[in-house]
Amino acid sequence: MSLAWDLEERGTGGLKEACGVFGVYAPGEDLFQVTKYALYALQHRGQESAGIALSDGRQVYLKKGMGLVSEVFTNYKGPLKDVEPVAAMGHVRYLTSSTPRRATPENAQPLLVRSRQGCLAVAHNGNLINADELRDRLEKEGSIFQTSTDSELIAHLVARYGSHDLESSLKGVLPFIRGAYAFVFMAEKQVFGVRDPYGIRPLSLGLWNGHYVLASETCAFDTIGAETIRDIEPGEMVIIDGEGLRSVQILPSERKALCVFEFIYFARPDSNICGKNIHLVRKELGRQLAREHPVDSDIVTGVPDSSLAAASGFAEELGLSYEMGMIKNRYIGRTFIRPTQKIRDIGVQLKLNPVQKVVEGKRVVVVDDSIVRGTTSKKLVEMFFRAGAKEVHMRISSPVVISPCCYGINIPASRELIGYKKSVDDIRRDIGATSMGYLSQEGMFKAVGIAKEELCLACFSGNYPIDRG
Amino acid sequence: MSLAWDLEERGTGGLKEACGVFGVYAPGEDLFQVTKYALYALQHRGQESAGIALSDGRQVYLKKGMGLVSEVFTNYKGPLKDVEPVAAMGHVRYLTSSTPRRATPENAQPLLVRSRQGCLAVAHNGNLINADELRDRLEKEGSIFQTSTDSELIAHLVARYGSHDLESSLKGVLPFIRGAYAFVFMAEKQVFGVRDPYGIRPLSLGLWNGHYVLASETCAFDTIGAETIRDIEPGEMVIIDGEGLRSVQILPSERKALCVFEFIYFARPDSNICGKNIHLVRKELGRQLAREHPVDSDIVTGVPDSSLAAASGFAEELGLSYEMGMIKNRYIGRTFIRPTQKIRDIGVQLKLNPVQKVVEGKRVVVVDDSIVRGTTSKKLVEMFFRAGAKEVHMRISSPVVISPCCYGINIPASRELIGYKKSVDDIRRDIGATSMGYLSQEGMFKAVGIAKEELCLACFSGNYPIDRG
Amino acid sequence: MSLAWDLEERGTGGLKEACGVFGVYAPGEDLFQVTKYALYALQHRGQESAGIALSDGRQVYLKKGMGLVSEVFTNYKGPLKDVEPVAAMGHVRYLTSSTPRRATPENAQPLLVRSRQGCLAVAHNGNLINADELRDRLEKEGSIFQTSTDSELIAHLVARYGSHDLESSLKGVLPFIRGAYAFVFMAEKQVFGVRDPYGIRPLSLGLWNGHYVLASETCAFDTIGAETIRDIEPGEMVIIDGEGLRSVQILPSERKALCVFEFIYFARPDSNICGKNIHLVRKELGRQLAREHPVDSDIVTGVPDSSLAAASGFAEELGLSYEMGMIKNRYIGRTFIRPTQKIRDIGVQLKLNPVQKVVEGKRVVVVDDSIVRGTTSKKLVEMFFRAGAKEVHMRISSPVVISPCCYGINIPASRELIGYKKSVDDIRRDIGATSMGYLSQEGMFKAVGIAKEELCLACFSGNYPIDRG
Amino acid sequence: MSLAWDLEERGTGGLKEACGVFGVYAPGEDLFQVTKYALYALQHRGQESAGIALSDGRQVYLKKGMGLVSEVFTNYKGPLKDVEPVAAMGHVRYLTSSTPRRATPENAQPLLVRSRQGCLAVAHNGNLINADELRDRLEKEGSIFQTSTDSELIAHLVARYGSHDLESSLKGVLPFIRGAYAFVFMAEKQVFGVRDPYGIRPLSLGLWNGHYVLASETCAFDTIGAETIRDIEPGEMVIIDGEGLRSVQILPSERKALCVFEFIYFARPDSNICGKNIHLVRKELGRQLAREHPVDSDIVTGVPDSSLAAASGFAEELGLSYEMGMIKNRYIGRTFIRPTQKIRDIGVQLKLNPVQKVVEGKRVVVVDDSIVRGTTSKKLVEMFFRAGAKEVHMRISSPVVISPCCYGINIPASRELIGYKKSVDDIRRDIGATSMGYLSQEGMFKAVGIAKEELCLACFSGNYPIDRG
Repeated sequence: MSLAWDLEERGTGGLKEACGVFGVYAPGEDLFQVTKYALYALQHRGQESAGIALSDGRQVYLKKGMGLVSEVFTNYKGPLKDVEPVAAMGHVRYLTSSTPRRATPENAQPLLVRSRQGCLAVAHNGNLINADELRDRLEKEGSIFQTSTDSELIAHLVARYGSHDLESSLKGVLPFIRGAYAFVFMAEKQVFGVRDPYGIRPLSLGLWNGHYVLASETCAFDTIGAETIRDIEPGEMVIIDGEGLRSVQILPSERKALCVFEFIYFARPDSNICGKNIHLVRKELGRQLAREHPVDSDIVTGVPDSSLAAASGFAEELGLSYEMGMIKNRYIGRTFIRPTQKIRDIGVQLKLNPVQKVVEGKRVVVVDDSIVRGTTSKKLVEMFFRAGAKEVHMRISSPVVISPCCYGINIPASRELIGYKKSVDDIRRDIGATSMGYLSQEGMFKAVGIAKEELCLACFSGNYPIDRG
Repeated sequence: MSLAWDLEERGTGGLKEACGVFGVYAPGEDLFQVTKYALYALQHRGQESAGIALSDGRQVYLKKGMGLVSEVFTNYKGPLKDVEPVAAMGHVRYLTSSTPRRATPENAQPLLVRSRQGCLAVAHNGNLINADELRDRLEKEGSIFQTSTDSELIAHLVARYGSHDLESSLKGVLPFIRGAYAFVFMAEKQVFGVRDPYGIRPLSLGLWNGHYVLASETCAFDTIGAETIRDIEPGEMVIIDGEGLRSVQILPSERKALCVFEFIYFARPDSNICGKNIHLVRKELGRQLAREHPVDSDIVTGVPDSSLAAASGFAEELGLSYEMGMIKNRYIGRTFIRPTQKIRDIGVQLKLNPVQKVVEGKRVVVVDDSIVRGTTSKKLVEMFFRAGAKEVHMRISSPVVISPCCYGINIPASRELIGYKKSVDDIRRDIGATSMGYLSQEGMFKAVGIAKEELCLACFSGNYPIDRG
Repeated sequence: MSLAWDLEERGTGGLKEACGVFGVYAPGEDLFQVTKYALYALQHRGQESAGIALSDGRQVYLKKGMGLVSEVFTNYKGPLKDVEPVAAMGHVRYLTSSTPRRATPENAQPLLVRSRQGCLAVAHNGNLINADELRDRLEKEGSIFQTSTDSELIAHLVARYGSHDLESSLKGVLPFIRGAYAFVFMAEKQVFGVRDPYGIRPLSLGLWNGHYVLASETCAFDTIGAETIRDIEPGEMVIIDGEGLRSVQILPSERKALCVFEFIYFARPDSNICGKNIHLVRKELGRQLAREHPVDSDIVTGVPDSSLAAASGFAEELGLSYEMGMIKNRYIGRTFIRPTQKIRDIGVQLKLNPVQKVVEGKRVVVVDDSIVRGTTSKKLVEMFFRAGAKEVHMRISSPVVISPCCYGINIPASRELIGYKKSVDDIRRDIGATSMGYLSQEGMFKAVGIAKEELCLACFSGNYPIDRG
Repeated sequence: MSLAWDLEERGTGGLKEACGVFGVYAPGEDLFQVTKYALYALQHRGQESAGIALSDGRQVYLKKGMGLVSEVFTNYKGPLKDVEPVAAMGHVRYLTSSTPRRATPENAQPLLVRSRQGCLAVAHNGNLINADELRDRLEKEGSIFQTSTDSELIAHLVARYGSHDLESSLKGVLPFIRGAYAFVFMAEKQVFGVRDPYGIRPLSLGLWNGHYVLASETCAFDTIGAETIRDIEPGEMVIIDGEGLRSVQILPSERKALCVFEFIYFARPDSNICGKNIHLVRKELGRQLAREHPVDSDIVTGVPDSSLAAASGFAEELGLSYEMGMIKNRYIGRTFIRPTQKIRDIGVQLKLNPVQKVVEGKRVVVVDDSIVRGTTSKKLVEMFFRAGAKEVHMRISSPVVISPCCYGINIPASRELIGYKKSVDDIRRDIGATSMGYLSQEGMFKAVGIAKEELCLACFSGNYPIDRG
């Protein structure tokens, strides 16, 4: 799976990135700019909508819209630029469910509500598994829903909790929600960060110019010139305000279950999760893959951009030549319209193009990070053969995906997954590769450097870490 | 007061038009188009945002945005165009409060929520006077608010009412709200129209192609080719669905109090309220004004567009020549930016221009429909004198405005009203007119043809018909 | 013919307004703003494109685009706002030919070229009748054409004329062009205004803040606070620069032929041409029409907006009641899309709506300014009858149009004109009116107050004043 | 120099890419789509404007605009989509001169003119060195200029040439122009491609679905599914029409002088020029650089994207580890606004971010493709040290740039070039690197595989191949 893949299959239920969240409490700083830059850094986690909420200590202001950060905030002239800020938060979003209704402006985040606790802005990364149940219960009790976001759900719970104090309300309601989540909350004078007790979605703490900041990935800290302190712990809530930082282990964490796909595909290579750098993990995934599925070949190439590190690791491990055997067009935007069939038949290769002189007559290893439906892999193999490759050896730097995700990644239903019932050799035949190799689960643990027991492997194993209650 | 005036003082708390609502139940018809056309007809009632909600019988779809109907719906390609509609409703909106925060996309209507009663879309024209109190109470009970609209308030009340049935919920909660309102509600298979027991804001019932329709003004019926049946009665709720139309006197109407400003300024000349045509009423207001304040002059002119009918009535009554002594530029858009001071000093007259050849050397009667702050009247008088008028006799086709409105019209606070403490002669001196005359209250009743007891005269008298509870 | 008519038939070869031009030489003034305001005032003369050229004395800068002045210049942040201006000019444009290719950004004006005479900006109102011939000759001599405008043609002629001096070049080439024209030219330090020897298209001279200005209509002068001096004479060229104003009778004017349609329909009511105010002329056209075709009726109404003055004159002359029997929706934009047939059949009246209460049971006189194809008139008559009128008497405040215009007005070919071969009674029957009356040519001369010999009457008579050479 | 560099210094006279051109003659094919796809593939050569001209055999239609291909052509609904095409051409453009006036819609290409030869569309890549002289002469002869492009210049020359035949006109006028050029011309029924006699700018010939196509780079052929045939020869003109392809050696090529910067930086890695693949050449430049300037270090990293191939070649040659030590944010758009100084001081790294875990404590080799002013290099070195690098060894995969380009690349004046008068060691000190090494000129020839005598080396040597006449 690659961004290429993502484009090809977008809209047909393909695997989508999770969301990105950011929060900062820093009176007197230019928080609108800083939050915008942080969102630029997190943009790979969500391109559907972007939003910033900003508090001046008395009131919370919000601007959000459909599209990229640059599209929503270029030419923005509203109050967020004018107020003297105390705290701010931001969100970039991707669909995490296939319900088409969700792709609406209403579902853009942060969500801003007024309740008895005052103003509350909420941004969320993840997916609650008991959302429908909670929503039903709330509706029975007379709640109205204007969006289909988990953020609105938690806002209702907080508002209904019998306390005027936001902190104790959050403590009171978080035990009722189940699923994967990294929340940032903002009140007039406080910012909160919470991570689910399994720690499925990432959330990190940084220090920017003497102020605490929260972000889904540490690359946002680098971007704004902040220092990474640590990850928020599973089940931990941090409260950032005029008093500084407080931490509360709001929920016990009996079993960690970090989403391993953050390492394989989602996170930016310059981010660190659990102290491990994504790029280095990916390179090691490639090395391990080479140890497990070596092949006598001439060159190794990756599918840009997410598989390049694994490809170079693969090449280095076997002493093979690492080449850029495939080029990605950076200018194919999201508004791109599919070619007509007539044009398509001629062999248009708009998004990805193999470099003929590099691959022709060669035995080529193509490293990709994952396979979901297999459609893109098939096209990739065809492209390489058409460009003159003698052999195309497909190597996947993760195990076979067999099961959907219910924690925030839009993996399609099992029946649509090429790995669901097919053997690796069947898959090889389907996609037309000369040979095929997936990284083993054990190899993945080794390369990532985190124990099997502390990762979420649901999509590879069908075992879901969170008890469905 | 005229649209000219409106433009000049917009953003500084000037008098703004109310909103416009529309609803239709007509399975199989092209309801997206019809609703759009009806909103075009109601556009004069609100230019800040526009929205359409449409039901296919199972789900309700919504599109709304900031700007004119043409801006929001031109190039619209979403689901509202594709679904097989059963019912639809629309809204155009203007600020009815000076709180700047309200001018946000969040406050565009219709509001669409999901609650235990299912989908509910709400659109509102008017202003509730116990909104803050109700909102406080709801917040204390755990409600969250995402907008500052009365529509969200009523949606909360409905959802919290202990019934799964929308009709009985509405019956249950409407007695709790106080103020001026004309609501249109839509569920998956029903459309409701309700008017407050004083009948302050208008709402009419029509028949379109065999189907019942609701609209703030009858001009919407003419536009879509519907026939006007009657006004919705004060305190009446109509339910339109597959069974046809049912009417319930949901609240007793002890005293009618129709907003007389609808006749004077707001409504479109081709609309009828209480069976009375707006244009004819305005002409009669002008005739009556002439009887009360005749003047020996050469020509009579109105301020385009809202005062033209009164001006022609005034002229006819006195046998004077009715002239277009002032031209309005139709192309000055809402995005218009004020001239710099330098340019301003030179005497730029972008929006309104007196016709020099018509007025020079003449004794001119200028008829305007109302005066709020007096700023525009002063400019008008100056313009006419600069264009060569020998005398400028100001005639106002309504009584002196002395008090703000709390029922949906944004009249500024008393201290900002030129009529609040000043005598008519002081006003005349302030604006520089040769002579000055306001229509008397009695004259207004006579011209409108509705008894004093059945009109809301709060802005002229300071007597507010609704007990504040 | 009315704007309503215009909308209905736009794109099908209907009658379109001419263009508007403006020029000013005023070092140190805010000429970008002033030119923009002047174009707002001339916007009724062309809504297809707008442009401003501005000189800082050394270089000429240009901004133009498709759409209204407000659309092209709102949010404009380019050099025209920053430079220290010496002179400026502007243009609003309408198609004056049916060739669809002309509706392109390339044809927006002013045209800005560099030639041996330096920078030259050109804006044009009118139509040259020997354009094709001149273009052919220039092409044969090696000229290239990037637009299909007459402005580009004259720029070529000027550049090819054997002089480095713009003034003498203009003197040299203007004798070669034939047709209707009002040109504004601007070089780095000069502004020129020229009117064809027949004076077909209007061009006036004003004084703004001590500086000379040129505009197609005097309403632009009122708008910017300038004083009207006089019309530019047929065949006159004025040169405005640091020395003040010079006038040259560049071409002999043997016969004046002012377009009478400027009085009937095009010009803004507050403009004056030949010292005659448009509004007053229109009112007199209505009075004269009443004298020629009186009718026993209850009310008189006009088709908004261009026929209102004639209607009120008609009513006054006969002592009838002048009513607003028809309302025009101000919010139907240019992007408006036609209703589907289904919706259409129901009787949608989006743009114009008769006021039922005013017309029902009445004998109604409907005054319109002209009839071209007759399609709109037919619809109008139908609307009034449907609204309950007992009789509909159509009165036209101009003679029968029988011939196309080749001087800048897009009147369709004779065969498409309802008046071409039909008698007035046939026309009456076609459009369904109770009675019908056109103003006579003699009546028109009398009402306009200009001798027959000084007007262009080609569209009414088929006699074209300019010898085709 | 890298795209990063490009962003940092854009607008301050930085090195800009050349333009991209495309042409195709293929009656009956979907040429609008195909040309659009080809322009997507050439987008890296110019992002300022995009345009497509298309002929239906009788007339040529044009659409162009400012911005990316996707911005100009998304939602395009004009005639280019509707006509039955015979031939088409396209252009993407970058400023190649620092005159700000050039950044205007007027200068977007293709240029479309009508002349005695009929319709002529022109697109150009390169820069004519006798343009001013030719323009002066043409102005003296009465030509007018509406743009400042070389395309308009050649159109004038063609039109003025004494022949109605486009082919012989081109033959007649091309000897008069001097400089670097790759032109595509299109008449109603013909497409022409011409390359200057030195072959400075690239232009290739392909075969698409049985039809001949022209493009600046072969990656456009891959993208549309065409096969690369060969480069157009220096001084060659090809004529493509209903008869197929004809080639004319229109000008003698005495000395080839291909721009070596196409290999170093401009061209896309999957393109081939002179049969040499760009990616492989870049990798070899890196290998050669390693041989010339080896260094004992821990990791090698490139500056994304243009230096990655050289970096991997460098690493492979020395057996060092190739790492992605720096990440580029793909979402920083062209509308990006510079951070305020306050934000800047904190260390915002929006565009490029070093991967701390990869570089900290390491001796890092940073490979970049070129250095122009040195500003970006200085920032890069700082970033790597701040991220914890122990040593930063700068290696440049091209020789020292000492002289501006007058053939279409916007290299600043010598005095602004860091390499102009400084020794390599001074440069090293300026940018703060631990060590520094530039590829030698000899090493470059070897790696590129083209003889010194067949390359343009003006920017490295100050020796300009074209006699200035």
